[in-house]
Amino acid sequence: MIPPDHPRYRSLMTRERLAICAKKGIVSWEGLTAHGRGEAFDYLIGERTTPGAMLAERTAAALLLTARHPVISINGNTAALAAREIAGLQEACRATVEVNLFHRTEERIRMIEDLLRHAGADVFSGEAERLLPLSHDRAWCRRDGIFSADVVLVPLEDGDRCGALVALGKTVIAVDLNPLSRTARTASLTIVDEVTRALPQITSACKELSGTECETLVASVDNDYLLSEAIREMTTRLLHALD
Amino acid sequence: MIPPDHPRYRSLMTRERLAICAKKGIVSWEGLTAHGRGEAFDYLIGERTTPGAMLAERTAAALLLTARHPVISINGNTAALAAREIAGLQEACRATVEVNLFHRTEERIRMIEDLLRHAGADVFSGEAERLLPLSHDRAWCRRDGIFSADVVLVPLEDGDRCGALVALGKTVIAVDLNPLSRTARTASLTIVDEVTRALPQITSACKELSGTECETLVASVDNDYLLSEAIREMTTRLLHALD
Repeated sequence: MIPPDHPRYRSLMTRERLAICAKKGIVSWEGLTAHGRGEAFDYLIGERTTPGAMLAERTAAALLLTARHPVISINGNTAALAAREIAGLQEACRATVEVNLFHRTEERIRMIEDLLRHAGADVFSGEAERLLPLSHDRAWCRRDGIFSADVVLVPLEDGDRCGALVALGKTVIAVDLNPLSRTARTASLTIVDEVTRALPQITSACKELSGTECETLVASVDNDYLLSEAIREMTTRLLHALD
Repeated sequence: MIPPDHPRYRSLMTRERLAICAKKGIVSWEGLTAHGRGEAFDYLIGERTTPGAMLAERTAAALLLTARHPVISINGNTAALAAREIAGLQEACRATVEVNLFHRTEERIRMIEDLLRHAGADVFSGEAERLLPLSHDRAWCRRDGIFSADVVLVPLEDGDRCGALVALGKTVIAVDLNPLSRTARTASLTIVDEVTRALPQITSACKELSGTECETLVASVDNDYLLSEAIREMTTRLLHALD
């Protein structure tokens, strides 16, 4: 239906893929809007992995590799966009993969777990309990999963859940295209990059980094610097449009 | 389901309203993502009508009031978010209101026309023909509606349709939160504001402006200046986050 000569063909096709996942119930309808927000910020960083994002991705790899119990928390949008990339990263860093939803139903969780398993991920699906101090469905997680993790990668997370995980003493790695969001500012490390670009970069770094490089990266995490770099990329692109 | 203590309660509730309209078929699923893009840019202008947007809205009122045959072109998102505001503007400037969809089905058109009529709009729904030089469904419009208009207000338009209307010699007024978009750069006048804030401002200006004020505003349309002002608002807000 979307003509290939449309200038935003690729972006419209991705939206259509998400819409198909929304019809199946994998992506929540509100998740489609959240994706659009990300698209806008991605546009402002030039729809590419910036040098700052690359540093954040290598640092994320170092944190995952040196963790005692790393967990990757997956929501509907992440599964719809990047199930295969999640499986690849899990293989590279041996993290637990756990599904956690804002708009939570048992049926959605089962469908998303099936999608991830179909893509090759080993999904942890023990019994969920209301363990986080939050008023909505994201309070739910699993005692032997996220609740006992030391490092949690949360692509496309919402802000107060990110804050709750940090308050529990966890190192939280967020993937968030909005450098001004509460998630971005609250996380221990924020990757300002599109999720299907970010995850393969983390996976590559997991395969390349030496122990010494990991130590150096972990010792020098500076999220304020990374967010500043992302903001500078965006303002540069905006100001360039004035020329 | 969304707890009122969630910091983005209002934004999430609007998304939910759009999701309900998507379930009914009024909003296309891709339209939910497009809304998200707008949300991100709205965030960057501080979710308020900027002075530049106010000038654009007064100029839009002047263009509509002095038009020979003004038409307001409505899509699913505009109808879902602002049916009542459309009816109010139509009353103030006596424009034709016509539904035109990117994802076009007869059933969607009928539902959107019903929604607008229910909100008090007088909807023009003559027979549509493929009159615009475009490869997709937005080529369709009505000979006595948009096709013969001299001034067309297109809230939330897609870029190449905007270009086709300008190429036909029409004065096109766009409402678009992204000042870098093709729509924003192609339109004769771009209002960088959220549609439910923009339309009532145009309506108020229609009621206030004198004939002389209209002439002055129409004679001094400078879309490059208006877009520059919007970009400056966004960079200022981004750079403020670095402090």
